[in-house]
Amino acid sequence: MAQPKIRLARKITFSSAHRYFNAAFSEDENRKIFGSCYTPYGHGHNYDLEAFFEGKIDSKTGMVINLRDIDIMLKRAVEPLDHHHLNFDVPEFKEVVPTTENIAKYCFDKISAQLGQSGNVRLSQVRLYEGHDLWVDYFGGA
Amino acid sequence: MAQPKIRLARKITFSSAHRYFNAAFSEDENRKIFGSCYTPYGHGHNYDLEAFFEGKIDSKTGMVINLRDIDIMLKRAVEPLDHHHLNFDVPEFKEVVPTTENIAKYCFDKISAQLGQSGNVRLSQVRLYEGHDLWVDYFGGA
Amino acid sequence: MAQPKIRLARKITFSSAHRYFNAAFSEDENRKIFGSCYTPYGHGHNYDLEAFFEGKIDSKTGMVINLRDIDIMLKRAVEPLDHHHLNFDVPEFKEVVPTTENIAKYCFDKISAQLGQSGNVRLSQVRLYEGHDLWVDYFGGA
Amino acid sequence: MAQPKIRLARKITFSSAHRYFNAAFSEDENRKIFGSCYTPYGHGHNYDLEAFFEGKIDSKTGMVINLRDIDIMLKRAVEPLDHHHLNFDVPEFKEVVPTTENIAKYCFDKISAQLGQSGNVRLSQVRLYEGHDLWVDYFGGA
Amino acid sequence: MAQPKIRLARKITFSSAHRYFNAAFSEDENRKIFGSCYTPYGHGHNYDLEAFFEGKIDSKTGMVINLRDIDIMLKRAVEPLDHHHLNFDVPEFKEVVPTTENIAKYCFDKISAQLGQSGNVRLSQVRLYEGHDLWVDYFGGA
Amino acid sequence: MAQPKIRLARKITFSSAHRYFNAAFSEDENRKIFGSCYTPYGHGHNYDLEAFFEGKIDSKTGMVINLRDIDIMLKRAVEPLDHHHLNFDVPEFKEVVPTTENIAKYCFDKISAQLGQSGNVRLSQVRLYEGHDLWVDYFGGA
Repeated sequence: MAQPKIRLARKITFSSAHRYFNAAFSEDENRKIFGSCYTPYGHGHNYDLEAFFEGKIDSKTGMVINLRDIDIMLKRAVEPLDHHHLNFDVPEFKEVVPTTENIAKYCFDKISAQLGQSGNVRLSQVRLYEGHDLWVDYFGGA
Repeated sequence: MAQPKIRLARKITFSSAHRYFNAAFSEDENRKIFGSCYTPYGHGHNYDLEAFFEGKIDSKTGMVINLRDIDIMLKRAVEPLDHHHLNFDVPEFKEVVPTTENIAKYCFDKISAQLGQSGNVRLSQVRLYEGHDLWVDYFGGA
Repeated sequence: MAQPKIRLARKITFSSAHRYFNAAFSEDENRKIFGSCYTPYGHGHNYDLEAFFEGKIDSKTGMVINLRDIDIMLKRAVEPLDHHHLNFDVPEFKEVVPTTENIAKYCFDKISAQLGQSGNVRLSQVRLYEGHDLWVDYFGGA
Repeated sequence: MAQPKIRLARKITFSSAHRYFNAAFSEDENRKIFGSCYTPYGHGHNYDLEAFFEGKIDSKTGMVINLRDIDIMLKRAVEPLDHHHLNFDVPEFKEVVPTTENIAKYCFDKISAQLGQSGNVRLSQVRLYEGHDLWVDYFGGA
Repeated sequence: MAQPKIRLARKITFSSAHRYFNAAFSEDENRKIFGSCYTPYGHGHNYDLEAFFEGKIDSKTGMVINLRDIDIMLKRAVEPLDHHHLNFDVPEFKEVVPTTENIAKYCFDKISAQLGQSGNVRLSQVRLYEGHDLWVDYFGGA
Repeated sequence: MAQPKIRLARKITFSSAHRYFNAAFSEDENRKIFGSCYTPYGHGHNYDLEAFFEGKIDSKTGMVINLRDIDIMLKRAVEPLDHHHLNFDVPEFKEVVPTTENIAKYCFDKISAQLGQSGNVRLSQVRLYEGHDLWVDYFGGA
């Protein structure tokens, strides 16, 4: 009942540069907290973003949501990030450190805003991989 | 207490052809809704099916459920699908569109029926990958 | 000198249905030789195609060949196969059994024909995966 | 509210030998229950351990937990297992069968003990892969 | 002409324990040369073995070699290794250190011996993965 | 004899930012040739570097080359690149466009220089992945 019954997930990839840096920290603090992620020009990653859409199977189409609609939303969500430097090119990360946690939240919010208030389907989770051995699951609302 | 404590998961692969088509739709509707998945003879995929068995660790065997038993159930569940055309060879998909959603539900039901009412272990989820970037999680009961 | 020095490789994915069948064989022969791949409507796979372009690094662009050009060629090569049934939809496989071997050769020839006689870059190999545990390497000219 | 909002996951790999054997079982029982896993000297695996840390995003660092701290905890947790024979070298598995289930529980407990009572972050899950097609999710408390 | 034209590759997985140890070395030498791989009971891995069969496409079957024949040969080759401790259970590794190099050579020889003198197909290479980041390619004849 | 007999391969990962840009090109040329890779601050990738060491199996150790030695060389080779911006932080890429081709060559040369003139082992190839669907093989000497 309250439990999710079915969800469809889709993966999309993008490539960005970033650096970990907080202007409110001293240089020493930045270095100590962010380690090798604190360099002036940054480094980068291939990010894999997975989005989970929760809903019900439409008995006529057999679908929870049309893949075509998902792909448009995902592409729009990551377009400002893909092939860009998050700190320098993306307004949302001027003040906010572009950690995997914060990028996951960014992606969730951008997809969720497009999905809107359609009663049948909701974005229940995104998973964002920074690499094969590090990722974040974000469930919204935080 | 109510929360799951431990689960064992097993993956199995099968290869099937399918097409997306609903006889109740006009040709235009079929084409519009199903896009490139609507062709007369269909296309195909390697499907990866993951099944999650929830239970308790038996203190003597160290197991939630014996892998040998799982493998028999999984094999029986996918045998009617493997190396077949879902629309033409599988009775359950004569009327039902063989989307990833519906195939996931099919697999869940076929495994669950074999597991039966053993009090200790239940099938809590299947995950069905149609490709590396598209999959469905089905939790039963829908 | 005669040995390859550098090559750039690119992967693209497509999904097709196929069946193994030779009209010149008896039903018994078809069944014996092709086993579970011999069913009337076929089954399917996600194919991963990798194409290897051999050449020299252009000192100004740093490239062996522009990725944009590769992507156009690869897309055109697999478009007739993707989301189609190879036996029924693709003229080249009306008489030729669509094994991984023959599909690899098909892809090599289609990419190679587009690359043409540019003196600097040649297609030296394709690798075609039918699944994670089965693939073919084709080097041209056979 | 009660629901998790965000979690960070990290993967680490280790390689161990093990055998399935319970001294309380007869040889026949051992053979029947453990099959090919019951041999005198054992066999082995590359294990992939994933640990999930649940918490809140610190607004200054953008992190749920510092990766440096995670890596120390994970390394300490698997060090007694890595490049060892679980049955012969690890005290915890002298009496307990080193199944994937029990090794997952072992890892969870070892990481959890290091994390301690920090109010902000808790270990909510480990996933332990014995191979690409078999794994266990353990959520603590069992 | 002299160059290979086409080859079919197949992957199979097995799980073994091993230790690195040479009785002709002093304990100090063993420890220095073999490091963490030198422990009395050993550790283990999931090995992925890939075998490459070079030949010509048979125009009637479309195959270089029938997959059914390959699978029998590969299974027989790895059966003595799978779920065993290489040093203690496999005669060939009583004296020979079971490094990835030597196991690759073992597998090549065992498959090659079964393939025999069939003029059309030859085993041109095996690749043996000890893990995702370490493997050996062996081309025979050494 | 002239043919390679055996080679050991090792993978290492690093993360860098880069941009495609040639000061000798006009802005229009840069944009046309480099497309989305031409932005002022760049983007980034997780790079997977594979190095292939060709030699002979030492009969006493069973090894072509000791893994410990490889790991030191690989780490030193990629350290100047890892968690850095190639264009701004790495002298070799001040003038040279940091394409996958040129980075592969850089890595080959840095490993090769460390390996030196040891008669038994030579670096025969590096493979550098920029992502799962794009990579370069470099064989030296170009």
